[in-house]
Amino acid sequence: MNIHPFDEALHLEAAGSAQPDTWLGTTSPAYWNMVGPFGGTTAAIAVRAVMLHPLLLGEPIALTVNYAAALSAGAFEVTAKAVRTNRSTQHWSIEQRQTDPTTGDSVVVTTATAVTAARRSSWSASESPMPVLNRATAGPRFAFANAEWTHRYDIRAARGGLPQNWDGAEAMGDDASLTQLWVRDEPPRPLDFASLAAMADAFYPRIWLRRPLQVPAGTVSITTYFHASSAQLAQSGTAYLLGQAKAQAFNNGFFDQTAQLWNEDGHLVATSHQIVYYKS
Amino acid sequence: MNIHPFDEALHLEAAGSAQPDTWLGTTSPAYWNMVGPFGGTTAAIAVRAVMLHPLLLGEPIALTVNYAAALSAGAFEVTAKAVRTNRSTQHWSIEQRQTDPTTGDSVVVTTATAVTAARRSSWSASESPMPVLNRATAGPRFAFANAEWTHRYDIRAARGGLPQNWDGAEAMGDDASLTQLWVRDEPPRPLDFASLAAMADAFYPRIWLRRPLQVPAGTVSITTYFHASSAQLAQSGTAYLLGQAKAQAFNNGFFDQTAQLWNEDGHLVATSHQIVYYKS
Repeated sequence: MNIHPFDEALHLEAAGSAQPDTWLGTTSPAYWNMVGPFGGTTAAIAVRAVMLHPLLLGEPIALTVNYAAALSAGAFEVTAKAVRTNRSTQHWSIEQRQTDPTTGDSVVVTTATAVTAARRSSWSASESPMPVLNRATAGPRFAFANAEWTHRYDIRAARGGLPQNWDGAEAMGDDASLTQLWVRDEPPRPLDFASLAAMADAFYPRIWLRRPLQVPAGTVSITTYFHASSAQLAQSGTAYLLGQAKAQAFNNGFFDQTAQLWNEDGHLVATSHQIVYYKS
Repeated sequence: MNIHPFDEALHLEAAGSAQPDTWLGTTSPAYWNMVGPFGGTTAAIAVRAVMLHPLLLGEPIALTVNYAAALSAGAFEVTAKAVRTNRSTQHWSIEQRQTDPTTGDSVVVTTATAVTAARRSSWSASESPMPVLNRATAGPRFAFANAEWTHRYDIRAARGGLPQNWDGAEAMGDDASLTQLWVRDEPPRPLDFASLAAMADAFYPRIWLRRPLQVPAGTVSITTYFHASSAQLAQSGTAYLLGQAKAQAFNNGFFDQTAQLWNEDGHLVATSHQIVYYKS
């Protein structure tokens, strides 16, 4: 049986009993972005480290990942510490480190926090109905030649696909930076918390849509809230998710992005927010 | 000159040269909530600790605060470490601790991360125009007798104020949990990053609006992105901010809240998101 490239990218080995919170991994060429790994895999590695931990209580409900530096290709270590365990919630502090090739020092490349919880059934409701869109009329599959990770997803925009003309002509209106798309792993892979955390980061930079110039842009920090259990995610199987993303503000070098992801049944499985560096 | 109660709540003393990242503070009765300090002050203390640090680069652009445990009334320490400093951004890991009265151990009560950045002027735009509302017709000032912190704000809802009837009759529609309000410190205090971080947490639980029952609810994690410089915030002076908040999903014990805050000039100064525990 072949291992899915996403699971290969997330493969972690325990560092040993002297470092019970630490796992060792290697960056994946299959999910390489322009100057480092796809940020979605970095978020997924944080989720994986937490979910591998023997002290884990419950399942992820919140994840914040701060991209402190572009990773180099190669080995990394990730440490996930349960800094506080309550009756039904648990708080995690996560750090990813690499050895600086120049100095030989271990340096922080990513910080993250996560909250896991043992959920109980309760009154539940959505206030964000899934947009009604027709997949048959969606645009072509998204791929960026020099971003290998884009080939590991099947992403098709119904609205707000990549600009046709990189002419810098500013799109106007309150939804100028809105993208609506379908997304699934390629090859298909059953949905779980790790892949959902990655898909929340699978939208191209909003600045490119609002003002079509291929300026440098990169996520600085992303926060994702999970609104489903692992059992509910597993029910989504390998089906597409419907994703939506838009910016609220572009201000002197940083814009935000707010995003939602629904499964085919219309369940809002995750909401996500990120702040992104851009040059202009 | 009197010190504003907010500055009193945020008063931090350096722990000394042996602990250059640590500050000592005390919880404020003036900002007490039902079972601990108002979470907004906790967020503001994280901001303050970062901004006091001699190694600070730039100004806050992102803040995530995880409420690991309700604080006890009394002393705390807060540690803010610059874990990575780049050319124009800096990543902070923050922990707030208290002494457990039973065991005498120092235990984590709050974790946080922040990103600060030296911004450069660039092309900027908003995609979230301020709602057009008339303050003259807003509701009465919000106050909760048993939540002392509510008396430290002047909050007036134009829409989505506290329910009149706690009858559990579910509000329906895509904006069922939407609140729009004006907010400023009481007494008035010039806006800064710390007070903005606190105001982002000044909305009462969305579950109470969607389903009017006073069930227990509390923020688990909040993330705020700042879309203004300290100079721009200072220009807002003591004027009201217009705040808007709504939930996107209520799922088995946790709901999310997405929020925006504009100054009187219509500048979107912050966007914020939180995940909130609720019982039902």
